Amino acid sequence: MHDNYDLEQLMELVQHRQLRRLREILVEMNEVDIAGFLDELEMEQEILVFRLLPKELAAEVFAYLEDTEDQEKLIGALSDKELREVLDELYLDDTVDLIEDMPANLVDRILRNTDASTRSQINQLLNYPKDSAGSIMTTEFVYLHPDSTVEQSFARIRKVGLDKETVYTCYVTKNRVLQGVVTVKRLLLSAYETRIGDIMETNVLSVTTHEDKEDVAQLFSKYDLSALPVVDSDNRLVGIITFDDAMDVMEEEATEDFEKMAAILPSDKPYLKTGVFETWRSRIPWLMLLMLSATFTGIILTSFESALAACVVLTSFIPMLTGTGGNSGSQSSVAVIRALSLGEVEFSDIAAVVWKEIRVAALCGLCLAGANFAKMMLVDRWLMRNPEVTPTVALVVCLTLAATVLCAKIVGCTLPMAAEKIGIDPAVMASPFITTIVDALSLLVYFAIATRILGL
Amino acid sequence: MHDNYDLEQLMELVQHRQLRRLREILVEMNEVDIAGFLDELEMEQEILVFRLLPKELAAEVFAYLEDTEDQEKLIGALSDKELREVLDELYLDDTVDLIEDMPANLVDRILRNTDASTRSQINQLLNYPKDSAGSIMTTEFVYLHPDSTVEQSFARIRKVGLDKETVYTCYVTKNRVLQGVVTVKRLLLSAYETRIGDIMETNVLSVTTHEDKEDVAQLFSKYDLSALPVVDSDNRLVGIITFDDAMDVMEEEATEDFEKMAAILPSDKPYLKTGVFETWRSRIPWLMLLMLSATFTGIILTSFESALAACVVLTSFIPMLTGTGGNSGSQSSVAVIRALSLGEVEFSDIAAVVWKEIRVAALCGLCLAGANFAKMMLVDRWLMRNPEVTPTVALVVCLTLAATVLCAKIVGCTLPMAAEKIGIDPAVMASPFITTIVDALSLLVYFAIATRILGL
Repeated sequence: MHDNYDLEQLMELVQHRQLRRLREILVEMNEVDIAGFLDELEMEQEILVFRLLPKELAAEVFAYLEDTEDQEKLIGALSDKELREVLDELYLDDTVDLIEDMPANLVDRILRNTDASTRSQINQLLNYPKDSAGSIMTTEFVYLHPDSTVEQSFARIRKVGLDKETVYTCYVTKNRVLQGVVTVKRLLLSAYETRIGDIMETNVLSVTTHEDKEDVAQLFSKYDLSALPVVDSDNRLVGIITFDDAMDVMEEEATEDFEKMAAILPSDKPYLKTGVFETWRSRIPWLMLLMLSATFTGIILTSFESALAACVVLTSFIPMLTGTGGNSGSQSSVAVIRALSLGEVEFSDIAAVVWKEIRVAALCGLCLAGANFAKMMLVDRWLMRNPEVTPTVALVVCLTLAATVLCAKIVGCTLPMAAEKIGIDPAVMASPFITTIVDALSLLVYFAIATRILGL
Repeated sequence: MHDNYDLEQLMELVQHRQLRRLREILVEMNEVDIAGFLDELEMEQEILVFRLLPKELAAEVFAYLEDTEDQEKLIGALSDKELREVLDELYLDDTVDLIEDMPANLVDRILRNTDASTRSQINQLLNYPKDSAGSIMTTEFVYLHPDSTVEQSFARIRKVGLDKETVYTCYVTKNRVLQGVVTVKRLLLSAYETRIGDIMETNVLSVTTHEDKEDVAQLFSKYDLSALPVVDSDNRLVGIITFDDAMDVMEEEATEDFEKMAAILPSDKPYLKTGVFETWRSRIPWLMLLMLSATFTGIILTSFESALAACVVLTSFIPMLTGTGGNSGSQSSVAVIRALSLGEVEFSDIAAVVWKEIRVAALCGLCLAGANFAKMMLVDRWLMRNPEVTPTVALVVCLTLAATVLCAKIVGCTLPMAAEKIGIDPAVMASPFITTIVDALSLLVYFAIATRILGL
């Protein structure tokens, strides 16, 4: 249902230069799909097709082009007049996104082709920190006066609404200070002579320009918002954030969390658009760090070399022990990281979290140790006839297993909470990091128990 | 800014039974915050406070209560009349969500207290599969006739709009078949006598009732939609999905992916609301499975026992090798899983993906092997004076390292793609699963190289 256009047919029309027919089809298509089609074309064809589009549609399509290099070349190919037309139709927040991705000479050209008032708004928006609410807001919104009537307000919406990203939530201001909001639904359901001040909602949720954009996205999902006003420190309305930008932030942040949890440095390009070298650069730092920190496990193993030589069978359970420890730890850490990022848990809950994890660890450890004891006796000793796997050895392994699971779960839940507390992103404390620590811990426990029980 | 209410003050008002003052504060509060406050109260107090709320607000608050057990008890405490009032105000999709979580006797009571038409709509919605578009849609939308004028349409919106979840996108239907959509913005900017059929957008994105809800959420984020019509197989409009429900789906699906990637069975309760036993049940199956599958690594180690005994120093590099392999593999698998779930990559891209991962693996392997060789010579041999770490041993370890990284990255990117192809959720093929496979692979490679080069 959603891919309701035929890419091959469009391609053929381009190849055969049947531009009139192509234009007829394009103007009926969704702007996102047209952008997807342009992304598939060679640069020269892309410019040709882009010029076919009516200017309003062209601006919408332009905002959805995926590849910033394509946007760059396209701007380079447009005349100043064409560029001005596109920029006139672009929403202000999209223009700002564009400018952030362009090289300096194009930024100059873009700014030269916008009018003075837009230029000053752009400069203002560009000044907000990268991850702040200010950086994702738009300054194009409808504001009403509390003393206007519903009828006057409709007239105002009709007059200014066309260029605004949303008209459905109108902001009531007095000397630029936010007084309340009123939805178009409310306006539609009220008598024409009603005063806005009498029907506006005064309990307004708002954020300041410097709020973190991830927290802002959380507010959208918590309160099911479609738009959120952004105010400065004096409660003056400076912009609004719309739900589509909040959804983008949610998706980006989730991707970033996934990457951090897999020891990848975050990148904001799609997988196949990222070059080999760039991918390598985002992956090698953590790999290197984690590899070198495995030196500790090496040192531990070396210092128990004689014990291992005396009872070689112990070696064969090392991967199982470190693996199970790592898995237990990452379960806890990921559960806690996600709970932190959804705001379900805060640092002050640390006692409750640790106590919960200890009980879960006890249950898990008990089950795993029991199952492993049975498996060692039945499979390793009886089925595979390995005489070295004595009940005492099995006891050592299973005690270690239970202790490791406990350590792993405690480490797994406390490290992300501690990271949050000291202002590091908890997502970094996920599987790879936890695994490296738990590897060392489980070996220490293993040899401590083995030397005591087996007297090595 | 957002926690603009004082929990302690509210609690005190409850304790001192200052209910009139409490009500004055509550009616000014956001429904989500009131629900958050009720979640903090004892059941008895919760019922008391809930009854203070005006019925429309009560219904909104009810929909946001987090704990389904609380909702259950609250329904139990309400009289039939009160329940009917709440249900009347509840949006239909929220009622359906509620019914899905309630025990049978309460479902009966809820259905008894809704009118016949609502009941039949509820039954219809309940019949859609759990993860389908039908299960998250609402049947409460505004539809217009293509031959109506803008003026007639405004009159219609004023009449029916109050109970609809959104009035901003109106659906134009003829004999229930979807003809187009028209936004209120468009209506506001058009002359009163204009015919709807002349201004409606006919290129409408829609989904069928059985579409997967995760794909639906992706559409919202791709096309920046605020609402999406749902049609049956004859293109008859049966419901709409609004962006707030799509955002919830996105968030749930991301949480589910995080959980699957950490070898946790998905649960839909917040972290601290999930009991110890329940948490254990969601974690033990994968732990158990992965532990038992580590048997293979044990078997591999046992069969090379004599080689290990001849050159014990090899043992001390096992955790570093399996760890680095596991980390490399999970980087690739998580990158590919995320790309699959965002629709950036499909199964047909498998050659491009594998080729990319091979080149990244070559770069990473080279760097890691080089760094590790230097580290073994400088730290292990020279600094720690371990004579067993000869250049030949270092060569064995570093060759294994490079080969392991290559294997790990290939396994890490192909398994999620294969899972997608055969209809398993790729997220299951993340770190823990990959790690277990890579552990075995890296040991096999290690001993193959060691026996050949060291002649063990």
